[in-house]
Amino acid sequence: MIRVLRSSVGLFALGLTLGVVWATAAMAMEPLPATPPVPKDNPQTKEKVNLGRQLFFDPRLSVTQTVSCNSCHNVMASGTDNRPTSFGVFGKKGGRSAPNVWNAAFLSVQFWDGRAASLEDQAKGPILNPVEMGMPNEAAVVALIDGIPGYREQFQRVFGGKNPVTYDNIAKAIAAYERTLVTPNSPFDQYKKGKKNAMSAQAIRGMKAVEELGCTTCHSGPNFAGPAMKTGEGFYQAFPMFPGSEYEKKYHLTDDKGRYEVTKNKNDMNHWRVPTWRNVALTAPYFHNGSVATLEEAVRVMGKTQLDKNLDDKTVADIVAFLNSLTGQFPAQTMPVLPPTPNTTTLPEAGR
Amino acid sequence: MIRVLRSSVGLFALGLTLGVVWATAAMAMEPLPATPPVPKDNPQTKEKVNLGRQLFFDPRLSVTQTVSCNSCHNVMASGTDNRPTSFGVFGKKGGRSAPNVWNAAFLSVQFWDGRAASLEDQAKGPILNPVEMGMPNEAAVVALIDGIPGYREQFQRVFGGKNPVTYDNIAKAIAAYERTLVTPNSPFDQYKKGKKNAMSAQAIRGMKAVEELGCTTCHSGPNFAGPAMKTGEGFYQAFPMFPGSEYEKKYHLTDDKGRYEVTKNKNDMNHWRVPTWRNVALTAPYFHNGSVATLEEAVRVMGKTQLDKNLDDKTVADIVAFLNSLTGQFPAQTMPVLPPTPNTTTLPEAGR
Repeated sequence: MIRVLRSSVGLFALGLTLGVVWATAAMAMEPLPATPPVPKDNPQTKEKVNLGRQLFFDPRLSVTQTVSCNSCHNVMASGTDNRPTSFGVFGKKGGRSAPNVWNAAFLSVQFWDGRAASLEDQAKGPILNPVEMGMPNEAAVVALIDGIPGYREQFQRVFGGKNPVTYDNIAKAIAAYERTLVTPNSPFDQYKKGKKNAMSAQAIRGMKAVEELGCTTCHSGPNFAGPAMKTGEGFYQAFPMFPGSEYEKKYHLTDDKGRYEVTKNKNDMNHWRVPTWRNVALTAPYFHNGSVATLEEAVRVMGKTQLDKNLDDKTVADIVAFLNSLTGQFPAQTMPVLPPTPNTTTLPEAGR
Repeated sequence: MIRVLRSSVGLFALGLTLGVVWATAAMAMEPLPATPPVPKDNPQTKEKVNLGRQLFFDPRLSVTQTVSCNSCHNVMASGTDNRPTSFGVFGKKGGRSAPNVWNAAFLSVQFWDGRAASLEDQAKGPILNPVEMGMPNEAAVVALIDGIPGYREQFQRVFGGKNPVTYDNIAKAIAAYERTLVTPNSPFDQYKKGKKNAMSAQAIRGMKAVEELGCTTCHSGPNFAGPAMKTGEGFYQAFPMFPGSEYEKKYHLTDDKGRYEVTKNKNDMNHWRVPTWRNVALTAPYFHNGSVATLEEAVRVMGKTQLDKNLDDKTVADIVAFLNSLTGQFPAQTMPVLPPTPNTTTLPEAGR
């Protein structure tokens, strides 16, 4: 686990601890690569991506057959559900705001608290979470998918073997699809690649402001979510860094203990994986509990809680303009067709 | 309202009542036309269809911003949610099974009880239904859509005028999209057009059986939902026609009074719009209350309740094979991109 300290000595020590070169370069703002890292044991293929897209959109993966991955990570929109927290099966509510699935493939750990090392690990969680998709266990999910002829055939083609429908392979297919969810060519990316009129003067002022203020100490790298790290190694930060502000109380920022809930290590209290700035203009409301309705207010909160600064209106507006320049281009997608179960339904409760 | 009587005298009288030619031709099984009727005041345009597709998939049309038209009428699948009854906002459950949106444009009335005269009328219902999408009133829906810049611009281009975002125009756009949801070229359609090997021998036996048994007295026409009628005129039928069967009790078939709930006319008690057979193999569970899990059992129930016949296993299997030959080809679609509200959310509850 990494915490960013406020002194240069701390930063230096951190660099040594990590065993990486911790220099200005590591904090640079970079264009988004065209493709994210791909694990060796789950290579990308077109058929696997198509299968993963179907699974991502298939509400049959929930116990009521009403909630799909896309319900909370809507890839027709921001990649979130733009709610403070999500509704799962039976109208149950989750405790944290749905993270953005767009460009999640560039993150080295998943979930707000980093408890999943990879997209594959992440995909296995919500399906079994009782307040999300609510399936009783892995075996029930596998039996359901294995019972749909169109899926069984596709798993056979994609994964091969005697019993290709496994929980691991379901997660692999979903992760392969998610690795295609990349939004390149934001105005910032175009600017970085030389198109100097891609960003407004205000956005450029905002870009300078986030560097000078120190926001990019954490929001660095191509995904603005921290330096490049190995898959499974997380870049965490205290939020709030400066406790006791009015915002902390107003927005209940410390009710949820964050990474501490995973590790039970006191040093992780109220620590969170640094979230991406990519497409942040589209993902209101903000923070782990979705308590802040606007990006403008989120910038003010961050200024106060992380830098102990009361940002003036102009600076806030400049930073918001810069953050809007990080909205990428969303690739056109074909709508999946979900394989049917002719003459019957996969829903156990139906007709009984 | 039309009820089909069981004697030939009744059918003759009915023909006279309708003022249409009521002959064998009216009950013929026909291929699905390539396009459905289009009302003069809502012509199809590419831009309107694209707008309607966005609205159809937009969960912001529900009060929790979690339920879209597509949630219950899933066009990535059967056009239904394959549930007995649907879940709306806050986990609330509706009382009737979601009808199929595919080929709904060929129906002369909408909803199980025919209470909407057109797709436009229909689209206005679920958005305001408290157990479906739960929006408080039309004005709230209009304000929401009008507040999304990308929608406002599109409504301007599509409908023109000073205030193009109206509840009527929202419904018109959705209806225009729904008129593209047509599934041509089922094996039956191919067979009717001359490709005699498109249907199996079993399916052909089933086709003859439904004619000989009298199923096609009601399930006639290109949509197998009754004879061609003017928009707003419904083709209704008693279900059960023969009361008192074991199925009636087992599947609670008469708890819901159907069209009577609309008209309060005793003659409409337990009457329903005759549903389509198109893609019926994909829309389990069956009937207005979704009480029957399999198509095989649905065929048995219909034989008993509508024809007073105990169909033997072979006949049931033949009919099921025929009904499977009515599964059409689902056109490939581009996934919509929903217009954003940068820096903020349209959800009133967020951050408050």
